[in-house]
Amino acid sequence: MSSQSAESIGQYLLERLYALGVRDIFGVPGDYILGFYDQMVHSPIRHIGTTREDTAAFAADGYARCSGLGAVAVTYGVGALNTVNAVAGAHAESSPVVVISGAPGVEEQRNDPLLHHRFGPFTFQREIFERITCASVVLNDPVIACRQIDQTLAAARHYSKPIYIEIPRDRVRVAGYPIPEPAQEAFGSDETALAEAVAETMELGEKSRSPIIVAGVEIHRRGLQGVLVDLVNRSGLPVAATLTGKSVIAERHPAYLGIYEGAMSAEYTRYLVEQADLLLMLGVTLNDVDTGIYTAKLDPQHMVRAAQDEVVISSHRYPRVLLKDFLHALAKSVPVRPEKFVAAPAAVTAPDFPLPDRAITTSRLVGRLNQALGPEFIVVCDVGDCLFATIDLQVHEQSEFLSSAFYTSMGFAVPAALGAQIARRDRRALVLVGDGAFQMTGTELATFARLGLDPIVVVFNNRGYSTERFILEGPFNDIGDWRFDRLGEVFGPLQGYAAGTEEAFEAALVAALDNRSSPSIINVRLDPADASAAMQRLAAHLHSRV
Amino acid sequence: MSSQSAESIGQYLLERLYALGVRDIFGVPGDYILGFYDQMVHSPIRHIGTTREDTAAFAADGYARCSGLGAVAVTYGVGALNTVNAVAGAHAESSPVVVISGAPGVEEQRNDPLLHHRFGPFTFQREIFERITCASVVLNDPVIACRQIDQTLAAARHYSKPIYIEIPRDRVRVAGYPIPEPAQEAFGSDETALAEAVAETMELGEKSRSPIIVAGVEIHRRGLQGVLVDLVNRSGLPVAATLTGKSVIAERHPAYLGIYEGAMSAEYTRYLVEQADLLLMLGVTLNDVDTGIYTAKLDPQHMVRAAQDEVVISSHRYPRVLLKDFLHALAKSVPVRPEKFVAAPAAVTAPDFPLPDRAITTSRLVGRLNQALGPEFIVVCDVGDCLFATIDLQVHEQSEFLSSAFYTSMGFAVPAALGAQIARRDRRALVLVGDGAFQMTGTELATFARLGLDPIVVVFNNRGYSTERFILEGPFNDIGDWRFDRLGEVFGPLQGYAAGTEEAFEAALVAALDNRSSPSIINVRLDPADASAAMQRLAAHLHSRV
Repeated sequence: MSSQSAESIGQYLLERLYALGVRDIFGVPGDYILGFYDQMVHSPIRHIGTTREDTAAFAADGYARCSGLGAVAVTYGVGALNTVNAVAGAHAESSPVVVISGAPGVEEQRNDPLLHHRFGPFTFQREIFERITCASVVLNDPVIACRQIDQTLAAARHYSKPIYIEIPRDRVRVAGYPIPEPAQEAFGSDETALAEAVAETMELGEKSRSPIIVAGVEIHRRGLQGVLVDLVNRSGLPVAATLTGKSVIAERHPAYLGIYEGAMSAEYTRYLVEQADLLLMLGVTLNDVDTGIYTAKLDPQHMVRAAQDEVVISSHRYPRVLLKDFLHALAKSVPVRPEKFVAAPAAVTAPDFPLPDRAITTSRLVGRLNQALGPEFIVVCDVGDCLFATIDLQVHEQSEFLSSAFYTSMGFAVPAALGAQIARRDRRALVLVGDGAFQMTGTELATFARLGLDPIVVVFNNRGYSTERFILEGPFNDIGDWRFDRLGEVFGPLQGYAAGTEEAFEAALVAALDNRSSPSIINVRLDPADASAAMQRLAAHLHSRV
Repeated sequence: MSSQSAESIGQYLLERLYALGVRDIFGVPGDYILGFYDQMVHSPIRHIGTTREDTAAFAADGYARCSGLGAVAVTYGVGALNTVNAVAGAHAESSPVVVISGAPGVEEQRNDPLLHHRFGPFTFQREIFERITCASVVLNDPVIACRQIDQTLAAARHYSKPIYIEIPRDRVRVAGYPIPEPAQEAFGSDETALAEAVAETMELGEKSRSPIIVAGVEIHRRGLQGVLVDLVNRSGLPVAATLTGKSVIAERHPAYLGIYEGAMSAEYTRYLVEQADLLLMLGVTLNDVDTGIYTAKLDPQHMVRAAQDEVVISSHRYPRVLLKDFLHALAKSVPVRPEKFVAAPAAVTAPDFPLPDRAITTSRLVGRLNQALGPEFIVVCDVGDCLFATIDLQVHEQSEFLSSAFYTSMGFAVPAALGAQIARRDRRALVLVGDGAFQMTGTELATFARLGLDPIVVVFNNRGYSTERFILEGPFNDIGDWRFDRLGEVFGPLQGYAAGTEEAFEAALVAALDNRSSPSIINVRLDPADASAAMQRLAAHLHSRV
C-alpha cells in the first residue's frame, strides 16, 4: 500500500496503523462498523475477536504498552460506550489506545432519525470520548479525513494517551485525500532550558552525598528504559521504582532498591529513599497509589522532577524540556563512577516450598513465584491484594510487568494479558488476579483458548473484595465461590487446578509451566483473612477516609 | 424514618428511594461508595451484589421496568464508567434508573490530587452522565442536597429516564436539610388543548371506516396498560403493538393483531395496519426498529400520534397534552360498540413437537415455547434473532416482555432478568438470549444461583453473530462454541442441558419447568444458517446500508 494512492478513508486508517506497528485490532463487530471490518480482514492487519468490547479495549491497552500503539474497533453506542471505563483507564495510565467507532452514515443522520443504538444527539458519543482521550475526530469530511487521522495518531504517540476516531459508515469506502508527506511531529525541547536544567542537576549531584533515582511509569510509556539503565550503569546511582512504574528497570539489576510506595514500601527501600538528600524523580507521577496514599515522606526541596515535558527543580520549573531529551542528556553528562552502588534487598523466597499439609498464603505464593519466574514471562497483574503482593515479586531481568496500578480498574489483567501476549509472541503471560476481578472479565480466557495461547492464570481466591474488607467490612464484600479451575468444562481447552495447600499449588504450578498448548488456571484458595503486609498498611490508612 | 428528622444526606436518599418503591439496590462496592453501602445495609433496602457494574445497571433497568424505579450504586471512575452503556440504554429505552456514584470527598478534591480511579478533572464523570441521563447532580452542598435529591427523582419519574446522583464520600454522613413538603410535580396538560385534541380525534374516528390502534413502548413506561385495555374493550377497535412495545396488551387479547414492524411484520398484521384509514398511534416511537428499518408504509396524514407530552394529528400539533391524560379522556369519550373486532392471527405452534430425530429450529422452538408459556412467566429477551423470533411468540395474558429492542445492546437479557425477577417475586423469568450476547454478560447467572432464583435461560447457540452474518459475512462473525450447559460446574447450583434435536429440547424444557430450586439453562444448538423469517427480511434491508 502507498500513501499516494487514492485509497478510501478506511484503508488509509488501516495503512497508517500498520505503519505504526499495529498488526492486530481487537473488537466485536456490529452493523455500523462492518464495512471497516471487511476492509480489515482484507488488509495485513488481523482482527482479534473478544467476547465483549470492554475486554477488547483492555486488550488494546495491554497491546499498546507492549508495542507502542494498540487499537480497538467497535460499533456505535452499545459498542463504544462499553469501552468507556477501559479507555478512561488507558488515559489515566497513559497508554496509547486508538478507539475506532463506527457510526450511522452522514446521510443517515440527516433529519435526526431514531436509529437503533442511538442514545441522544449524534454528537454525544464524541463528547463523552473527548473527556477520556487526548484527541477525537469524526471523519465526516473526506477532504480532511486523512489529515485528521494523521493528527490524532500523532497525538496518541506524543501524549501516550488514547484517541477517538469515529467513522460514519458511509465514509469508510469514500476516497480520502492523503497528504503526500505526513506532518512532522513538531514537539521538541527548548534547548537552552534543557542545557540549564541538566547543568543545575549536575551541580546538585556533585554536592549530594546520598543521591537516589526514583523511576516511574512515564519511563515505560516513552520507551526510555534503555536510557535509564545507561544512566544507572554509568553513574552507579541506586534506583527505586514506583508501583505504577514497576519493572521500569530489571528488578534483579544490582542497583535496584525495590518499590518505593510510602508506608507500603519494604523497610529497606523506604529508609534509603527517604534519607536521600537528592531525589532524581524520573517520569514519576505523584498519585495516591505511588505515594502509599500520601504516606510518602519526600521533600520537594530535594527533588529534581522530570515529567513528560517539563523539569521541576525544588520550586522552579523548566517548561518545554522533554523527559526523553533530559534523560539522554543526563546519561551523557554524568561522570562514570568506578565504585557502583550495590543494592541488596532481601528477595522474598519461600524456603522448603512446598511444606507438607500447609495452607497456602499470599506471601509464600509470591516467594514461590519469585523462584519460578523465568525470562520468558510477562507478568500482568490485576487490582487488590495481588497487586500489593507484587511489591515483593521480582520480575526477571528480561521480564515486564503490566497493571492498572493507578486507575485500579478491576478486571484489567486477563484481557490486558491477551493484548500483551499477542503483541509479544516471544513471551508467555503470567496473570495474577483476584476472584472478584476474575468474575468481571475472566471469561475472556476463552479467547486465549480459541487462539491456542498458553498463559498461566493464578486466581487469588478469598471469596470477596479483600481490599475493602480491610477498609469497611460488610456483607457486600462477600462474593460467590466460583470453581474457576472448572472453566475448561465451558470453554476448553484449558487446564484447571484448585490449590488450597502448598503441595497442591506446587503440583499445579509444575503442570501449568509444562502445559504449552492451552491456558492454565490455578484457583488458589486463600483464607479470606490472609493478606499481604503492604495491604494491611494501606487499608489502615484508607480506613480513616471512607 | 421521617423526612422531618435531621438525618444524613445518604440516609435521606435511601429513604426517598424506599418511599418510591425501591427495595433493592444493585451494585459492586468500592472505597468511594463504601460509606453509603454501610448505610444501605442498615436500612430496609437490600443490596444485591452483582459480578460487575454494567450488569448491575442492566439489572436496575429490568427492576425499573417492573416496579417503576430502579437503582444502582457504584464507586467513582471504574465503577460508574462501567455502567455507561447500560445507562445509555436505559435512557434510549425510557427506563428510570437511578445511578448513585461515590466520589472522592469534597475536601479530598481540593488541590486537585491524583487519586486512584481518577481519569481527568473531577467534573468529567458528571459531564459524561449528563449526556445519558435526564438530570444529574453532585451532592457537595448539604444545604441543597435534599432538594437536589427530590428534584432529580421527580425528573426520573416524570421523564421515565435515568438520573445521576454523585455523592462525595465526605458528604454521605453529613446532615442534610430536608424540605418539609416535597415539591409537587407540576407538569400537567393544557386542558383546552387536551379537549380539542380529543374532540378532533373523536370526529376522525366517526368518519373512519377502518380505524386501528398501534400501541407502543411509552404505554409501558407510563404504566398505562390498563387504560389502553379499557379503550380497546369499550371501542372494540383492533390493536397492534410495536416491537419495542411488545406485550403492552395481552397478546391473547381477542382484539390483538400482533406486532407491526413494517416489512418484518406477519402478513396478516401488516395488511390490516397498512390499509387502515385512521391510525391511533399511542405512545409509539417511530424508530428504525419499530418501522422495520423504515419499511413501514404508514401515512402521517392518517395518523393521530400521542407521545409523552404532545398529540400530533396529521400535520398539526397540540403541545402540552400528556399521553396519560389523552388516553384517559379518549377511553371515557369513545362510544361503546356492541360489535367487537376479533383478531385471528394464526398463533405459531409446533405441531407434534418433538418430532423424532429432527434438528431443532428457531421457528419450531418458538412454537413450542408458545405452548409452554404460562402466566407465571416474565419473558426477558436479548438482541438478535431471538428478539425477531419473538414477533411470533405470544406472551400470556398476564405476562410481560422486556427487551432492549430499540437500543439493542447485546448482553441485556440475563442481568435485566435478575432485576425483573427480584422486583416481581411472583414471576419466573424466561430468558431468550443468543450465544454472543450470553458470552458478554451470561455469567451473571451466578447471582441467580447464589440467590436461589429459578429462571429458565434458553441460549440460541449458532456459534456467531447471526444478524451480522446476514448483513455482511466474514470470519469476524464466528465466535467460540461454549458449552453453556456446563456452567454449573463453575458456579452451581445450576441445571444445564444441551439440545440439538427437538426430542432433547423437549426433555430439557420439561426438566427445566420442573426445577424450581436453581437456574436452568438450555444450550440450543442451532444450525448457523437457521434464522427467523423476520430476520432474513431485516438483514436484506440492512445489507444495502453497510
